Amino acid sequence: MIGKVVLIGAGNVATYMGNVLQSNGVHIEFVYSQSLESAKRLGVQLGTAYSENLKDLPAEADLYMIAVSDDAIKELVSRLDVGGLVAHTSGTLDIDVISNFPEAGVFYPLQSFSRINPLQNKEFPICVEATRSDNLHSLKELAAKLVGVGSVYELNTIQRKAVHLAAVFASNYSNHMYQIAEELLKREDLNFDILRPLIVETAEKVKRMNPKEAQTGPAKRGDVKVMQEHMRELEPDPDYKALYTLISNSIIKRK
Amino acid sequence: MIGKVVLIGAGNVATYMGNVLQSNGVHIEFVYSQSLESAKRLGVQLGTAYSENLKDLPAEADLYMIAVSDDAIKELVSRLDVGGLVAHTSGTLDIDVISNFPEAGVFYPLQSFSRINPLQNKEFPICVEATRSDNLHSLKELAAKLVGVGSVYELNTIQRKAVHLAAVFASNYSNHMYQIAEELLKREDLNFDILRPLIVETAEKVKRMNPKEAQTGPAKRGDVKVMQEHMRELEPDPDYKALYTLISNSIIKRK
Repeated sequence: MIGKVVLIGAGNVATYMGNVLQSNGVHIEFVYSQSLESAKRLGVQLGTAYSENLKDLPAEADLYMIAVSDDAIKELVSRLDVGGLVAHTSGTLDIDVISNFPEAGVFYPLQSFSRINPLQNKEFPICVEATRSDNLHSLKELAAKLVGVGSVYELNTIQRKAVHLAAVFASNYSNHMYQIAEELLKREDLNFDILRPLIVETAEKVKRMNPKEAQTGPAKRGDVKVMQEHMRELEPDPDYKALYTLISNSIIKRK
Repeated sequence: MIGKVVLIGAGNVATYMGNVLQSNGVHIEFVYSQSLESAKRLGVQLGTAYSENLKDLPAEADLYMIAVSDDAIKELVSRLDVGGLVAHTSGTLDIDVISNFPEAGVFYPLQSFSRINPLQNKEFPICVEATRSDNLHSLKELAAKLVGVGSVYELNTIQRKAVHLAAVFASNYSNHMYQIAEELLKREDLNFDILRPLIVETAEKVKRMNPKEAQTGPAKRGDVKVMQEHMRELEPDPDYKALYTLISNSIIKRK
């Protein structure tokens, strides 16, 4: 059982994880961040020791959870000298990047965290992987404590990468579609508020049906006149016109 | 006050409108559809007279609501011979397409309706327009009865078209992003379920903040390594790779 955790990183993921682990009775032993300011912010928030120096890390913990950016991780693990289970929280990195530790794992939460905005939905998946089966068991148990056993996924690195790429389309790109919509409204002095009910309904629809069934709109109907009219409206912005063409064609192709 | 309505059309919009009008005390006088089967289905559902013949339409009603496809409307209005207020429900058609009627209006509900799936959210905007101010008042009053006064928007045709185009991005295109995500998961034998919590959270985020602030992901962070890795994963599907490139660049450009 994982009872003592050292957090390596103090960004969005580490902040969420620190708080949710603590509220589930897991002891946060220490917070490290390369920025003292960040380490202090999260350390004080959790009432735990903190430092910007890797040498200050406690030598004994059940889990060293690395929640830093993908770019920063390689350099960090080369300087990390600890025993026990070390797990990263990345959606795209191989478990191999921490293979210098005999006990290595992955604990990838599939959610969009931001420090300033509390999550509306506490249910989300956690994807786990480990080099040793006892550690896999411990990570699954810990994940189940946080999100419920039905939301724990045991995935290998290839599967996890596919999930991460799919999440980019489903979350980052759909959000960018909202942003384009906001700009198109602004041109006619209209507020984004008018779209909020439609956006939520569109997302909630795919709770009950698959996205292909849920698809509506001119491209799905093959309504050429409306699409031509839209292209004319998009003349002032070639980028959006190019996106309109490519996405409409992709919908038409997959009708 | 609009107390008696004739529905022209029996598709998704007409079905929703018929039911919600009736449950708000408005009398549905008649249902027309060019397909007798559809006219009957909705007529029976609402307990009202129906026909597939335009000549059967009652000559006296407070509102003739045209809810047929954009393509079908011109031919239909050329054969329609009624007095009183005639309004269409299209997001893209000019009010002028029904200018052969002295009393013309638009009653455009900004929502994604489907006959088989009940709406989760009863709050959505209705955009109204009319050639006469007394009719504009009546349409606003009717819309307020259905969705509340705060969700009634008085828009001219240019504004309404901008809203429709924005809705294509915010709803149809975000849904297509979900569909691509589903396909990417299938390749690794993963179920779409894993993404549902993230999708809903992404949509709910923009209730509280604007989409630009809410944007996350590799393109927003400028994480070139992750994007290159994603491009490699998308090699088997040039369409998705092209979309990935275009959307990522659009995000980077607007950071």
